[in-house]
Amino acid sequence: MAKYKKYTYEELKKFCNDAFEKIGFTADESKIISDVLLLSDLYGIESHGMQRIARYHNGIKKGMIKIDAKPEIVFETPVSAVIEGNDGMGQLLSHYAMSLAIEKAKKSGIAIVNVRNSNHFGIAGYYSKMACDEGLIGMAMTNSEAIMVPTFARKAMLGSNPIAISVPADPYDFFFDASTTVVTRGKLEVYNKAGKELPNGWALNAEGKGSTDAADVLKNIVGKVGGGIMPLGGETEQTGSHKGYGYGMFCEIFSSILSMGITSNHTHMNGKGGTCHGFMAIDPKIFGDAAAIKEHFSTFLQELREAPKSEGADRIYTHGEKEIIAMEDRLANGINVNINTVAEMIDFAEFVGMDAKAYLGDVNLDDAKESSYK
Amino acid sequence: MAKYKKYTYEELKKFCNDAFEKIGFTADESKIISDVLLLSDLYGIESHGMQRIARYHNGIKKGMIKIDAKPEIVFETPVSAVIEGNDGMGQLLSHYAMSLAIEKAKKSGIAIVNVRNSNHFGIAGYYSKMACDEGLIGMAMTNSEAIMVPTFARKAMLGSNPIAISVPADPYDFFFDASTTVVTRGKLEVYNKAGKELPNGWALNAEGKGSTDAADVLKNIVGKVGGGIMPLGGETEQTGSHKGYGYGMFCEIFSSILSMGITSNHTHMNGKGGTCHGFMAIDPKIFGDAAAIKEHFSTFLQELREAPKSEGADRIYTHGEKEIIAMEDRLANGINVNINTVAEMIDFAEFVGMDAKAYLGDVNLDDAKESSYK
Repeated sequence: MAKYKKYTYEELKKFCNDAFEKIGFTADESKIISDVLLLSDLYGIESHGMQRIARYHNGIKKGMIKIDAKPEIVFETPVSAVIEGNDGMGQLLSHYAMSLAIEKAKKSGIAIVNVRNSNHFGIAGYYSKMACDEGLIGMAMTNSEAIMVPTFARKAMLGSNPIAISVPADPYDFFFDASTTVVTRGKLEVYNKAGKELPNGWALNAEGKGSTDAADVLKNIVGKVGGGIMPLGGETEQTGSHKGYGYGMFCEIFSSILSMGITSNHTHMNGKGGTCHGFMAIDPKIFGDAAAIKEHFSTFLQELREAPKSEGADRIYTHGEKEIIAMEDRLANGINVNINTVAEMIDFAEFVGMDAKAYLGDVNLDDAKESSYK
Repeated sequence: MAKYKKYTYEELKKFCNDAFEKIGFTADESKIISDVLLLSDLYGIESHGMQRIARYHNGIKKGMIKIDAKPEIVFETPVSAVIEGNDGMGQLLSHYAMSLAIEKAKKSGIAIVNVRNSNHFGIAGYYSKMACDEGLIGMAMTNSEAIMVPTFARKAMLGSNPIAISVPADPYDFFFDASTTVVTRGKLEVYNKAGKELPNGWALNAEGKGSTDAADVLKNIVGKVGGGIMPLGGETEQTGSHKGYGYGMFCEIFSSILSMGITSNHTHMNGKGGTCHGFMAIDPKIFGDAAAIKEHFSTFLQELREAPKSEGADRIYTHGEKEIIAMEDRLANGINVNINTVAEMIDFAEFVGMDAKAYLGDVNLDDAKESSYK
């Protein structure tokens, strides 16, 4: 169904840099935002790349995201900081916060930095990777608009609450970035657009019962009338629902609770986002020989990849491998952007007064009518 | 099927204290071991309480667990330590390690302490709770004998790898303690004893395909011929298998990797346990007003409990509530000990030269024949 147009990484980067600068961010800020969005597209996580531009654009227009907001450190120790985000752009606040965590971890060994009153920050893994690129262990998490229904409830009370962990390793760093729900809302949207029934074990209707009706579940989430997505582990304790709910809580504690911010069930109300994030950086040197630890870990990862495969499987992945493979492919062959997303990018370009055609070329938008934003 | 005999908490504590002292631990050491085991029984986690005595007894007899082993700090900073366990009793090494983490966190704000070459440590939550009882956030994890089959594999490569998190809250502390597999091996043993088919989505056969045959799966685990238990999230990426596998990796990193210890796939070989643990303590004061954070968290927990229930559910639990309810019941009404476990306790008592009857009373062991240890 969906049609795509292919762009090079450089083309999309130029578009993003210029568009975010045109809307009011500095050149340095635009570069950070673009970098976060494009890593997502390079890694094959389409839902969090160019696809998100329309939502950021809307957030800025509605005043939920404040372009001029600056982060303020409201509490600080050598191993921690709490940052008031003042409703700024999530990527900028988060880049600032993780940079601070890295700086502190290099001095003190470990640091945790939390951010409150922020907005959607893109993929959590971008920030855990920042630490990893400096030889540190990185963790990043964020709460979000309530979408996870706790075990035995029928109302979404937690966000998709992703947790990302990056750890230095050869030949690829370990990179785990996943929502604590079974799937993300983006997955439901894909099924909805395709008119496909949801698999059992993903979503709940307004009564809190399992549902395979993507359109109904999405409508209920937006209307906040009940239902939502199940925790990792599904609907019942038999399949571990309480465990996914527990990891969602872990995320909530390290984002909204320790920062004294807004919990998922109260975010995105009355035109305010209020999203909270948590970042951790750990220097492996505090456990001895960092190079030896990296080698030890790399050996284990290799053993995992070489373990006997299940019938029908030809490869066991370690976390982060798929992203590296996707990135190599996209850097070499370009990035497919959904035609609906291209339409949104053109909207954005026109809004900020950019010549869309100069950046995105001739685009036939006939196929873009199914866009949920049109 | 299973028959039980009821004992008071005090009766079981006296039995444990005396039995572990008789076998060679000091009075203080025996008290710690008993305390860990009995918290498990009080919390209703039968698999990790008295039920484990036979395994510890066997481990000690076979020399896998060394009674006289003392922990050695092999690397240390103000925020970290790595402890060589010298094949000691897991509970003692872990109590020592978490005590050290707490002491460091009180001074430095955060601390991570890892242990290598240890043995089974009981419930992870005992140690996270130690930090919580001091007003800190506590985390505890451990690797274990390989039992988790990574996504697309057919051989167990990770342990049940539980992660426990305790966070101060009113009226109950948050207490999350769960394996990163869908279920634990103990659950499979219960189904096997009852002759029941396993639910779909729990276990894999030697070919790496879903299996409902508990006896076959357990036999294969022991024989290390393939198969095992699925990660939280089941067998396929559609249900989030790679996420449970990712949390299992998180546990492995903070136990065996950072300590330069033995990864799950190499533990329990040639008469050596080699289990590794990770402990973290965080003082909420490093984020501002600890009392305000506790209140903020308690409010969110109350909102969760008060959220609309799914059809047929009358209660939404927050993590730790079920354990508190179980403990109140067991302290008031006694602890039911499976008759097979009582038989094992009698064995242990006789081995160490204790008068079993004086501790455990008259026991009719006719029903104990199904014990897997007889």
